[in-house]
Amino acid sequence: MRTLSENKSHGGIQGVHAHASEACKCDMTFGLFLPEEAKEGPVPVLWVLSGLTCTHENAMTKAGAQAWAAEQGIALVFPDTSPRGEDVADDDAFDMGQGAGFYVDADQDPWAPHFRMWTYITEELPALLAEHFPLDMDRQAITGHSMGGHGALTLAMKLPGRFRSVSAFAPICNPTESAWGRRQFEGYLGSVEAGRAHDATLLMQEHGFDGPVLIDTGTKDQFTEHLGTAAFARAMVGRGQRGVLRMQPGYDHSYFFVASFMEEHVSFHGEALWG
Amino acid sequence: MRTLSENKSHGGIQGVHAHASEACKCDMTFGLFLPEEAKEGPVPVLWVLSGLTCTHENAMTKAGAQAWAAEQGIALVFPDTSPRGEDVADDDAFDMGQGAGFYVDADQDPWAPHFRMWTYITEELPALLAEHFPLDMDRQAITGHSMGGHGALTLAMKLPGRFRSVSAFAPICNPTESAWGRRQFEGYLGSVEAGRAHDATLLMQEHGFDGPVLIDTGTKDQFTEHLGTAAFARAMVGRGQRGVLRMQPGYDHSYFFVASFMEEHVSFHGEALWG
Repeated sequence: MRTLSENKSHGGIQGVHAHASEACKCDMTFGLFLPEEAKEGPVPVLWVLSGLTCTHENAMTKAGAQAWAAEQGIALVFPDTSPRGEDVADDDAFDMGQGAGFYVDADQDPWAPHFRMWTYITEELPALLAEHFPLDMDRQAITGHSMGGHGALTLAMKLPGRFRSVSAFAPICNPTESAWGRRQFEGYLGSVEAGRAHDATLLMQEHGFDGPVLIDTGTKDQFTEHLGTAAFARAMVGRGQRGVLRMQPGYDHSYFFVASFMEEHVSFHGEALWG
Repeated sequence: MRTLSENKSHGGIQGVHAHASEACKCDMTFGLFLPEEAKEGPVPVLWVLSGLTCTHENAMTKAGAQAWAAEQGIALVFPDTSPRGEDVADDDAFDMGQGAGFYVDADQDPWAPHFRMWTYITEELPALLAEHFPLDMDRQAITGHSMGGHGALTLAMKLPGRFRSVSAFAPICNPTESAWGRRQFEGYLGSVEAGRAHDATLLMQEHGFDGPVLIDTGTKDQFTEHLGTAAFARAMVGRGQRGVLRMQPGYDHSYFFVASFMEEHVSFHGEALWG
């Protein structure tokens, strides 16, 4: 692992690190914010999964999360959204291939050799973080935006006991019924049917989450039809899931929306992580 | 004037607008954040001037200023840092030409036809803003980063009565003695001597500022030698200027530094604007 940059930020350190990934068979880059408290000992971790077209950098520079993580004394991890490189398969569309890993392990060509984001995010990167940084891996929480919201919700529900809380900003939450999901599941997994194991609405119906859930989505989100928010809401209510889903009037899908509610999301996770 | 985008942000609206500039003889773009209170009537304005290589967008997306401006009920203006376009002179260096207007009116070729950022920022843009938006132009304050800190300090001191408070992040504050200043004054104004009228340290010695000043600069700023912070500090103290200059331990020149102290800068201006 090598450190690409370190900048002091809100009393802590915003680092960017790269490493050769075994899961993705390419170099992967991630951002890690460590609050000042990490100098004294391990701190809890909030995963921040990003959306289509994003790298590790977008949420790290545009979401304003460090201010609130510093206040809560928790670390932030900003992983990349897919494998990268000339040898890695890609697609002309922005929502397939590089920048669009969808947090699944592909088993179809040409994606199978590198597109193993599920394994990367759930196994390889946590192990690397635990080895190299003062993180309390018994206190993890997860959030994400758009495709990253899909990632956050599916990881939280498929890995019971791993995360104490889950939140999402404008998550893709019923991808088997959406253009943002069906094409990707067909491409990466061979069928939409195979993607059912990675559909937050179906997971909510079957498993739910053993902890608090917080979802914010804007009423002016330009991708409303791709998100499946209503189906997820129905599943949450149907299950009696502990959680809050808020439709935020006038907000769209952008980082201006994300930044507007980041304080409340980080506080929400802080409460679960320190409680 | 045309609106390029509007995103709801922290209860207000982050807009991006473009217009044909008479001063710069090209299209100019700026960001304007209006807090929710602007729906009810005119709100105070904080100008945010950006540094080398920046457009209107960098501070608007990376500084996290909207959160605090919303709290204070004040607007934020994010102007571009130079004229732009194929017809506009440029230089291969990042610190000269497009993206490096230095907030002066050039009178030397090839810069003179378009590089009139002083007139643009002090006359044309304020008039345009006053005409089109609910802004209380009797309540203005100004801040900036790096070259934008130079702009903020020089505007504040050269336009007595215009701004109630001035702050800066890692400002270039003695440009007649710096590689970030001497070359630009020679190019734009014909000589370093001509740039003396735009040197914050000299202006502090001669005029000072009739209001509070707040400066933050990082002790790990990688451009320390270009900033002239010590000379400016001496001038502030020598004059008995009301103000605070803080050396922030471990911080560098990046937006991670700027974002870390934006809350305090916006609060500082809010106090002056609402006081």
